[in-house]
Amino acid sequence: MLDQGPEYKFPHRHLLGIEGLSPQDIHVLLDLAEEAIEVSRQVEKKRSTLRGRTLINLFFEASTRTQSSFELAGKRLGADVMNMSVATSSVKKGETLLDTAMTLNAMRPDIIVVRHAQAGAVHLLARKVDCSVVNAGDGAHEHPTQALLDALTIKRNRGRISGLTVAICGDILHSRVARSNILLLSALGARVRVIGPSTLLPAGIERMGVEVFRDMRAGLKDVDIVMMLRLQRERMQGGFIPSPKEYFRFFGLDEEKLSLAKPDALVLHPGPMNRGVEIDSAVADGAHSRIREQVEMGVAVRMAVLDALAQHLPNG
Amino acid sequence: MLDQGPEYKFPHRHLLGIEGLSPQDIHVLLDLAEEAIEVSRQVEKKRSTLRGRTLINLFFEASTRTQSSFELAGKRLGADVMNMSVATSSVKKGETLLDTAMTLNAMRPDIIVVRHAQAGAVHLLARKVDCSVVNAGDGAHEHPTQALLDALTIKRNRGRISGLTVAICGDILHSRVARSNILLLSALGARVRVIGPSTLLPAGIERMGVEVFRDMRAGLKDVDIVMMLRLQRERMQGGFIPSPKEYFRFFGLDEEKLSLAKPDALVLHPGPMNRGVEIDSAVADGAHSRIREQVEMGVAVRMAVLDALAQHLPNG
Amino acid sequence: MLDQGPEYKFPHRHLLGIEGLSPQDIHVLLDLAEEAIEVSRQVEKKRSTLRGRTLINLFFEASTRTQSSFELAGKRLGADVMNMSVATSSVKKGETLLDTAMTLNAMRPDIIVVRHAQAGAVHLLARKVDCSVVNAGDGAHEHPTQALLDALTIKRNRGRISGLTVAICGDILHSRVARSNILLLSALGARVRVIGPSTLLPAGIERMGVEVFRDMRAGLKDVDIVMMLRLQRERMQGGFIPSPKEYFRFFGLDEEKLSLAKPDALVLHPGPMNRGVEIDSAVADGAHSRIREQVEMGVAVRMAVLDALAQHLPNG
Repeated sequence: MLDQGPEYKFPHRHLLGIEGLSPQDIHVLLDLAEEAIEVSRQVEKKRSTLRGRTLINLFFEASTRTQSSFELAGKRLGADVMNMSVATSSVKKGETLLDTAMTLNAMRPDIIVVRHAQAGAVHLLARKVDCSVVNAGDGAHEHPTQALLDALTIKRNRGRISGLTVAICGDILHSRVARSNILLLSALGARVRVIGPSTLLPAGIERMGVEVFRDMRAGLKDVDIVMMLRLQRERMQGGFIPSPKEYFRFFGLDEEKLSLAKPDALVLHPGPMNRGVEIDSAVADGAHSRIREQVEMGVAVRMAVLDALAQHLPNG
Repeated sequence: MLDQGPEYKFPHRHLLGIEGLSPQDIHVLLDLAEEAIEVSRQVEKKRSTLRGRTLINLFFEASTRTQSSFELAGKRLGADVMNMSVATSSVKKGETLLDTAMTLNAMRPDIIVVRHAQAGAVHLLARKVDCSVVNAGDGAHEHPTQALLDALTIKRNRGRISGLTVAICGDILHSRVARSNILLLSALGARVRVIGPSTLLPAGIERMGVEVFRDMRAGLKDVDIVMMLRLQRERMQGGFIPSPKEYFRFFGLDEEKLSLAKPDALVLHPGPMNRGVEIDSAVADGAHSRIREQVEMGVAVRMAVLDALAQHLPNG
Repeated sequence: MLDQGPEYKFPHRHLLGIEGLSPQDIHVLLDLAEEAIEVSRQVEKKRSTLRGRTLINLFFEASTRTQSSFELAGKRLGADVMNMSVATSSVKKGETLLDTAMTLNAMRPDIIVVRHAQAGAVHLLARKVDCSVVNAGDGAHEHPTQALLDALTIKRNRGRISGLTVAICGDILHSRVARSNILLLSALGARVRVIGPSTLLPAGIERMGVEVFRDMRAGLKDVDIVMMLRLQRERMQGGFIPSPKEYFRFFGLDEEKLSLAKPDALVLHPGPMNRGVEIDSAVADGAHSRIREQVEMGVAVRMAVLDALAQHLPNG
């Protein structure tokens, strides 16, 4: 990447989810990301891979972290980046998602990065536009670059994904992060467990090939990786909403519960964290935590994705 | 443009409206825009015309489409672009329009693009600053780049403007788009009709040299171009506010009404559309529609305007 | 700067306040700023000093003027600039200041510019991150680039700071601008007076080495520089809030009061101005005013600061 031609060309025009990616596709992206890490660590953290290309960051939901990460990834590859927070603009005027998308498409961007509150909105959009589309999170469906950055963090710390046992803990029901991670980790040969209260576990989750635990201590036993999820209280409508204190007691990761995992277990969290709700500060900031490293990997993975898609474009 | 020196130099320091432009001025801008279309269609959609220059997008009213279009136009010409949405910042602190403008002027931008809710605000500002000013819409007064992009769309589809009959339909009263289009189309030799309910037609509009129709079917008869306007319900205060359903029945463009125009009539709309209010989805997305092409022309026209003004600056 | 190597290297990794800067440090920054003025006055107002570097503008409080000034300064030095208005994003999700800071730090920026409503927040942040931090205003504590731009404006108009008498007038209690200016002006040998109603003067202000006046006419007598402050009504909680009219009568700068200062006295204001509250329009726009010049100096000073910090970075 980034100034050299790999032999295996990423075969997809869009990155809409982990679903549909082959293990080889995933490895190509992770390898490109390894190279991208070095770009951001240099004094002049800039490549010309996307010079003269236009990247639009189209966020229908606010997200400091993901939007920033894509913005920096695009800029460091030399693209012109345009941010659009649509929550506060044309949506007010009643324009439809597709009209917004087609309007942007007519401005001839090369890549549109989209976050939307509705599962499936990003796929719909991708079918209509001429440019590449990257899913930056759609409802409770997928968040593929989050799963890729989690995988990259694990791989750099453990040397592999295959054969590891990974526990994904918390609000599985509302989590696109969980879903993308289950797909990716399974594809690369990890054993995946999900842990959460019954009310926050989707019906039939077993069919995704995961082991299900309703007791956190049982689920954490001997795992290599503990992946905590943000308690998405803002997504919970109607049904059971746990109190933060009660939730922490049963499903918050503290040092005592973590001690049940392997001694060298790693702790991940997609952020932003609810400290004292799903994770204790001592763990978040402790020796097992790789939460800050995840953020750095986030920029690298997004550079890798943009680079892979750019290669795939006509005349790319 | 864009790396060559045309013989006729655009003679204005600002673009405040279509009023005051000669037919030759308009043709120069349309010719520059034709060249700019090709820039955005290339893989590397970037010129160095405005390299090192500063463009400020100063929007006192939100506008996804127009602001984005200017932002991309500036970036594709190599300018440093700074967006300022003033509705949400210093206006809260009670600063006047002119203080905001003079503050920005002191930062030595080359061009300020301004949208403001008050007719005349952009002219006022232009008299005070040292840089070039582009009107991106001021109240119900003018929106010159919209008229230019409409003209470019027509010209590319019909080969000319002169001699065509154009119907501008809907909320003429609140529409800067209508006003700029009447001026431009008349200057280039088109015959212009305006169609709308009495309550949405400004008094004395006949004096602008247009034919006035209160019945849509009569007005559309044999026209070459149907230019629909957005129903600006947010601008209507006090007076008669039509219900969307009633409005659509009488003044919404559907296939039946469109069939009264010439068989090859083109349909335009400045966006964002109120589908089912002023335009039926079947027409908006149908074979006569050039609505998406308008958006692409929008970027091209704004590149042309920025380029023309940059040539005019001292040492430009 | 800006393509040449000065002999005295700015010795600080951060610019957190005027406190801690030596007179030589201040002079280095002012000298760099003098050069930077010329950059913004050229047609191609662009240097490559920060090419490939990442600047993050992290504003927890909205500020049109300061944020814009840093954005342009960064872009004119060639940096990739990313704006983050955190008031409207992750803070809503309950993330802590430090989590936000550490997240951004992990994205490997070179410089973070921070504005925050709490005094001390910027220092806290600087202790945690690997990059350089610039204080763009923290609570009622410091606003060092404002003091630097005020000093640059004075120096260019009077040729020196030393020996001048400067009156800082108004809401001293809530003003980080006052505090930074007192420190800077005193360090460079000016005599500083503060003028305000008792309720807006901090207890013990005399210990900063200033003369205190509660009567504006007495305080303005024979001063070289009149530095007006914005009446920060939004910061006043609980205590006495003066009516604008009453305030203007006693502490608003009008031509009559200004006539008590030296005949060639200069008037400064950090903006945005409350015309008719702390300053009369005739004075704001009059011959003594250097308020617009201050804004231009603001961009130059910020370019100087970014440049000085970049030189100090490893491999800078």
